[in-house]
Amino acid sequence: MSDLDRVLARIDADLDRSVDRLFQYLRIKSISTDPAFKDDCRAAAEHLAGDLRTLGFAADVRPTAGHPVVLAKSNGAGRRVLFYGHYDVQPVDPLDLWETPPFEPRIGTLPDGRKAIVARGACDDKGQVMTFVEACRAWKAVTGALPLAITMLIEGEEECGSKNLPPFVAATKDELGAEVALVCDTGMWDPGTPAITTSLRGLVYDEVRITAANRDLHSGLFGGAAQNPIRVLTKILGALHDENGRVTLAGFYDGVRELPADVKAQWDALSLTPQTFLGPVGLSIPAGEKGRSVIEQISSRPTCDVNGIVGGYIGEGSKTVIPAHASAKVSFRLVEGQDPLRIRKTFRDYVAARIPADCSVEFDDHSAAPAVALDWSMKPLKAAKQALTEEWGKEAVLIGSGGSIPIVADFKDTLGLDCLLVGFGLDDDNIHSPNEKYDLTSYHKGIRSWARILAALAEAPR
Amino acid sequence: MSDLDRVLARIDADLDRSVDRLFQYLRIKSISTDPAFKDDCRAAAEHLAGDLRTLGFAADVRPTAGHPVVLAKSNGAGRRVLFYGHYDVQPVDPLDLWETPPFEPRIGTLPDGRKAIVARGACDDKGQVMTFVEACRAWKAVTGALPLAITMLIEGEEECGSKNLPPFVAATKDELGAEVALVCDTGMWDPGTPAITTSLRGLVYDEVRITAANRDLHSGLFGGAAQNPIRVLTKILGALHDENGRVTLAGFYDGVRELPADVKAQWDALSLTPQTFLGPVGLSIPAGEKGRSVIEQISSRPTCDVNGIVGGYIGEGSKTVIPAHASAKVSFRLVEGQDPLRIRKTFRDYVAARIPADCSVEFDDHSAAPAVALDWSMKPLKAAKQALTEEWGKEAVLIGSGGSIPIVADFKDTLGLDCLLVGFGLDDDNIHSPNEKYDLTSYHKGIRSWARILAALAEAPR
Repeated sequence: MSDLDRVLARIDADLDRSVDRLFQYLRIKSISTDPAFKDDCRAAAEHLAGDLRTLGFAADVRPTAGHPVVLAKSNGAGRRVLFYGHYDVQPVDPLDLWETPPFEPRIGTLPDGRKAIVARGACDDKGQVMTFVEACRAWKAVTGALPLAITMLIEGEEECGSKNLPPFVAATKDELGAEVALVCDTGMWDPGTPAITTSLRGLVYDEVRITAANRDLHSGLFGGAAQNPIRVLTKILGALHDENGRVTLAGFYDGVRELPADVKAQWDALSLTPQTFLGPVGLSIPAGEKGRSVIEQISSRPTCDVNGIVGGYIGEGSKTVIPAHASAKVSFRLVEGQDPLRIRKTFRDYVAARIPADCSVEFDDHSAAPAVALDWSMKPLKAAKQALTEEWGKEAVLIGSGGSIPIVADFKDTLGLDCLLVGFGLDDDNIHSPNEKYDLTSYHKGIRSWARILAALAEAPR
Repeated sequence: MSDLDRVLARIDADLDRSVDRLFQYLRIKSISTDPAFKDDCRAAAEHLAGDLRTLGFAADVRPTAGHPVVLAKSNGAGRRVLFYGHYDVQPVDPLDLWETPPFEPRIGTLPDGRKAIVARGACDDKGQVMTFVEACRAWKAVTGALPLAITMLIEGEEECGSKNLPPFVAATKDELGAEVALVCDTGMWDPGTPAITTSLRGLVYDEVRITAANRDLHSGLFGGAAQNPIRVLTKILGALHDENGRVTLAGFYDGVRELPADVKAQWDALSLTPQTFLGPVGLSIPAGEKGRSVIEQISSRPTCDVNGIVGGYIGEGSKTVIPAHASAKVSFRLVEGQDPLRIRKTFRDYVAARIPADCSVEFDDHSAAPAVALDWSMKPLKAAKQALTEEWGKEAVLIGSGGSIPIVADFKDTLGLDCLLVGFGLDDDNIHSPNEKYDLTSYHKGIRSWARILAALAEAPR
């Protein structure tokens, strides 16, 4: 029996305890975007650092201008990989749609019989990070050592734009040397098909706040004469897309390239139809650019979404008010070739040009990260693909992801590191939504996958 | 010394106690639009009925399908007037903008030295109703009787559309006979000029709720392909006005008449400029129909306002969500000649035609009341105008109001009663806003005004 076989057997035997350990971690309310949960974020960092110390890591909770970073290094002078993940989670609202409290993890059974861990963060990203930690634990338990040296960098601000991570990476550059970075924050192609993500969309996320009068007004007395900031805001936001689903900002698509023919052929072969992709969430008509396939709309084309809007009276019943303010959270998913700072400026100019002379507008910047396209030919990718294929019994596919992981570009720029993005999330995991879950199979075989990948990377040609 | 002079002297001497009685009434949190305050609404009704019984009224708290109605009758078989007001108040949000708690009334001093009663309902409509009650109290105290017979109808649902009042009025028609209806829920022309309101805009108030996916989605994974209900909603609402401030609904202005030349001449003489009307609230550019004066925009022209909008993540920070739902509260102020049910249907058809095939929309009806134009030649109007002119030392003006008082049309249709609309509110009273107030002068001289009007009506020709 090889070391790897014994590690895999150990993972199978230890699964219940692996789930218990994840549950402990999920009970910590590490919502990074809401200042009320600042102490919980630190508690999550301390919890993880403590756990990594039991595996022989030298683990610190390092301060930043925001939530702290967990930096952990195994000893060993040989080949080294840098693992990245995040301990923070999304807010939980609307709370009333959760079937059970979001920070009381449980094993649930899905309508089709699948077992799943249900909690905020079950997938994104606590469950995913723990697949890697548990793989390390199994290697350590069975062989007394990790198959190669590992540095772990687990941040607490991924869900609010990772603003403080790039300066942290720059400042700790000397401690982060490695051959490749591993990231576990992405998904599978489908529940049976593993995937390596080779491109990520960027993210510009702005908040817009429009002010009209210096106080709320009665719509009967002032309606007609007084400007309504909701009217101004909806006119602006309602014109961000044209009738063909294209974003109307001037020059928005400048620099966006068409897919290479071979990638397009591979994607077309995946046969993602509107029905298979949108059907499970109750939709049927792709809302993106007409003439583009669904997989292009969600992977290789830039988009715009209003993620939140609020103004005036939003309680029960009616109130005849013209509010003083209205605001919206607006984000753009970017692809390679788009400059986030230019897009942000274009958006702000577009808004400002449409503000009446006696109204005002303020902007808040939540994110401005470029898209990332990874090197399909990098050597670790081949080894990881083979390991995944062996674990899942189905060839791993290379895909683009619509989501953003801001730090990936910094790893390349600051550390010179390629990233290998492997994750076990599924489209129905409800990440960022009520009842977030992570399939028990994702967790179990995710741990096994990392055990295999670590072995494969240890042996891969440099 | 005439009876009236002694009554006025009594009002002056009793002012502090009149303020105390209003304070007691203002402490009751009778927010009708929020079911959480149901018991408070009943408490306000019971409080008022109890007070009226001390003045010799036979006062009942009568049930309706919603909040109860206070119906009080003085004895006496002679000439009778029907007084209408409401005991319910607007919600208090945004609570953090109140300088002091909204249900802890106080006397404040405005920057220009005016004293004012500050509380939710101080003006709308508890303070206004109490001007009439205190006038009755003074007559009763000085002469042992009211100058004419009075029926009082004080409802609890004016701030949420008065849905249950028309059936109540129809059912109690036999108890509501009178020569004229008096309503105290309107304003002065300015702090020194009393006014009688002779037209009221109608109100159609709808809530629109758009549903796209069957759950909130991650904008990275689904953005581009999944329809965003905020995008649909803002496109619909943002197109409700054209570049000239006109409402774009088909046929919206059908039936709307131009002002008679003499009314227009009187209004033009009032010299209401954008600066005088909008300057105090921090605006300068009229947002209504281009080519119309400010007074037309707020009085004689129909309008549309979005009174509230909400969708997606509205907490601090950012969340990359495509929400399942987005909703808005939309109201239309109507003028004579517009049919509220037709306007509502036109609006709903307009929205429904713009909902993508895989999304859905629901509507909630909060109000559908027509505009009212009163008879400028009715006899009580002349008597009341003279009484107001004597009290304020300045000729009372006849004005149109942009606001709506739904019951006024029903009084005419069901009871055959003309309404005399006299009130002492000011443009800066912050009704429906934080820090609602009622000038101490409005309260004091309002009480004195009603004392005079009651005497004048008792003597006016039939």
